[in-house]
Amino acid sequence: MMINPKEIKQMTTPSDKALVPFVSVDNMMRLIHHVGIKDMLTELARYIEDDFKRWDLFDKTPRVASHSDVGVIELMPTSDGEAYGFKYVNGHPKNTAEGLQTVTAFGLLADVYTGYPVLLTEMTMLTAMRTAATSAMAAKYLAPKGSTTMAMIGNGAQSEFQSLAMQAIVGVDTIRLYDVDRAASEKCAANLAGTGLRTVICSSPEEAIEGAQILTTCTADKQYATILSDNMVGAGVHINAIGGDCPGKTELASGILERSDIFVEYPPQTRIEGEIQQLDADHPVIELWEVISGKVAGRRAADQITLFDSVGFAIEDFSALRYVRDRIKGTDFFFDLDLLADPDDPRDLFGMLMRAKG
Amino acid sequence: MMINPKEIKQMTTPSDKALVPFVSVDNMMRLIHHVGIKDMLTELARYIEDDFKRWDLFDKTPRVASHSDVGVIELMPTSDGEAYGFKYVNGHPKNTAEGLQTVTAFGLLADVYTGYPVLLTEMTMLTAMRTAATSAMAAKYLAPKGSTTMAMIGNGAQSEFQSLAMQAIVGVDTIRLYDVDRAASEKCAANLAGTGLRTVICSSPEEAIEGAQILTTCTADKQYATILSDNMVGAGVHINAIGGDCPGKTELASGILERSDIFVEYPPQTRIEGEIQQLDADHPVIELWEVISGKVAGRRAADQITLFDSVGFAIEDFSALRYVRDRIKGTDFFFDLDLLADPDDPRDLFGMLMRAKG
Repeated sequence: MMINPKEIKQMTTPSDKALVPFVSVDNMMRLIHHVGIKDMLTELARYIEDDFKRWDLFDKTPRVASHSDVGVIELMPTSDGEAYGFKYVNGHPKNTAEGLQTVTAFGLLADVYTGYPVLLTEMTMLTAMRTAATSAMAAKYLAPKGSTTMAMIGNGAQSEFQSLAMQAIVGVDTIRLYDVDRAASEKCAANLAGTGLRTVICSSPEEAIEGAQILTTCTADKQYATILSDNMVGAGVHINAIGGDCPGKTELASGILERSDIFVEYPPQTRIEGEIQQLDADHPVIELWEVISGKVAGRRAADQITLFDSVGFAIEDFSALRYVRDRIKGTDFFFDLDLLADPDDPRDLFGMLMRAKG
Repeated sequence: MMINPKEIKQMTTPSDKALVPFVSVDNMMRLIHHVGIKDMLTELARYIEDDFKRWDLFDKTPRVASHSDVGVIELMPTSDGEAYGFKYVNGHPKNTAEGLQTVTAFGLLADVYTGYPVLLTEMTMLTAMRTAATSAMAAKYLAPKGSTTMAMIGNGAQSEFQSLAMQAIVGVDTIRLYDVDRAASEKCAANLAGTGLRTVICSSPEEAIEGAQILTTCTADKQYATILSDNMVGAGVHINAIGGDCPGKTELASGILERSDIFVEYPPQTRIEGEIQQLDADHPVIELWEVISGKVAGRRAADQITLFDSVGFAIEDFSALRYVRDRIKGTDFFFDLDLLADPDDPRDLFGMLMRAKG
């Protein structure tokens, strides 16, 4: 059944406070096109950067996961003391074969002072945007200066977003594509036509990384895999490891990790989910927020291998929710949902119910 | 701004799988009146009872709370392996004075196999209904046989729901009302006129409990309080302690707890939030599900004091979500939200975005 606005029958008149702005998938796509994909990636990266700079303020907790044999459903809450945000997100690698998304998401922002929600939004599109913006923000600090070429290994739903964010924020102009399924690379190349990016479809990971300063891995099997082996990775590159993010699922040979300076979002979560689950629990890592806020150096030397072991953290979603809340003001890229019961007399919820009787 | 269905501009045609049925506050109230309040309380109690009988199946975790100086925002997830549900709920006692609800809530049910949401619904009204249904379900097993009179101490938003559930499920016919604010009792009595319940407004808690077999306390200060003192409570009653449910907030004198058989929902949560936070961490309690499923006796003797130390648990919300999902089938008490991005080719999220460009 399609959405038919006429189906919405409203018998009562909710108060303003009971209404929550809702951004549908359709409206999110309109917002993205209204702002422009690359501009929105750049603006999102700025919001994320601002929140990484005030990292200490946030209530941080590893995500709350409910695992099953076929996937995981997660809640990712955080708060800066004024706003509270959370994302619902699933991860079901087997979904693709059934014609469904591996990852779907929605999110909510609320006012800490009242506890009332102030924004409900789709986050499948928004997560793709914020993940790419986060990768590019990290690369801006960690990749070799003047990086122009990225190897994009794994050409699924995230690949175009990654490519455009690296173009907009880092200045990359060439994407070398590889996927076990060549059709995925062809899809990605076709989607990127006309964006100003040069794409090269490659037949092997080895070919894809030739001449690349940035190596992005974004594959989604739920198992240990070796997308990059130790002998493939030379000095002076930045590795942007996006895939993985499940216990028991990694993409990189451990030898690469041993030779890299490893940057992570939130260590307690990354040690469980990231590439570093292969290493000892006390293996040194650098928190990305310390680099962003100038406490710790990012790239120190031309021959250094930097690795952003990205698993995705709640604060990035919080930044994206803040962005959408701010950006939809005065637009029609949302409509209000009657989500909260808000009787005139707060003690008289039952009276509100009685008065609604037709 | 009021909801105006005409504001919904849909530029793209989402697939069926991308649509999530949404029950607004308005539609929830229509559903309640369609079923009938007392019938719905009875049906909800049956769903909750069914889930308490298969307690072992559930993924259980204490709620995930984000505390601030003025309140708390909580996520309450659970899963039975086939469906996954969670509730967002705030608790802000100071809200009432500002004309807002102390508690607002919404919830979501999802398919564990795909990770896709299948229901989004308001839960402020629904929480009031499920809390009352749970109290009455517990009283059915624990209160003295033939209980006809309930003292209702605290006559806020929950009081009418509690009264009607006890009438429908336990057979109570008289409610003795007490509140520090007599206007609240008058509101409750007025709302219950015509329901078949006799109401008596009392001037003190002592007067309210005269002749009552069931003592319900439902107050909401965020502090330790003594709504019932030890010498007020005689033998052979059932205490239904609904208020509290925060660390640092209780309603009963500890002496009452020492003389009672204490029944709880989920001990790890109740020991933090319930009346029993006043007792040693190993003080014996009985899990309510064990009574419901016949493993343990409920009320054993006429002079026994039974205490349901209720804090509200995720499985009760899960039952309520299951109920709404089942009950709205074939009705128009919902409309579909375009919440999930679901491109034809799951790897081609970006292509979906490009095709949406007007």
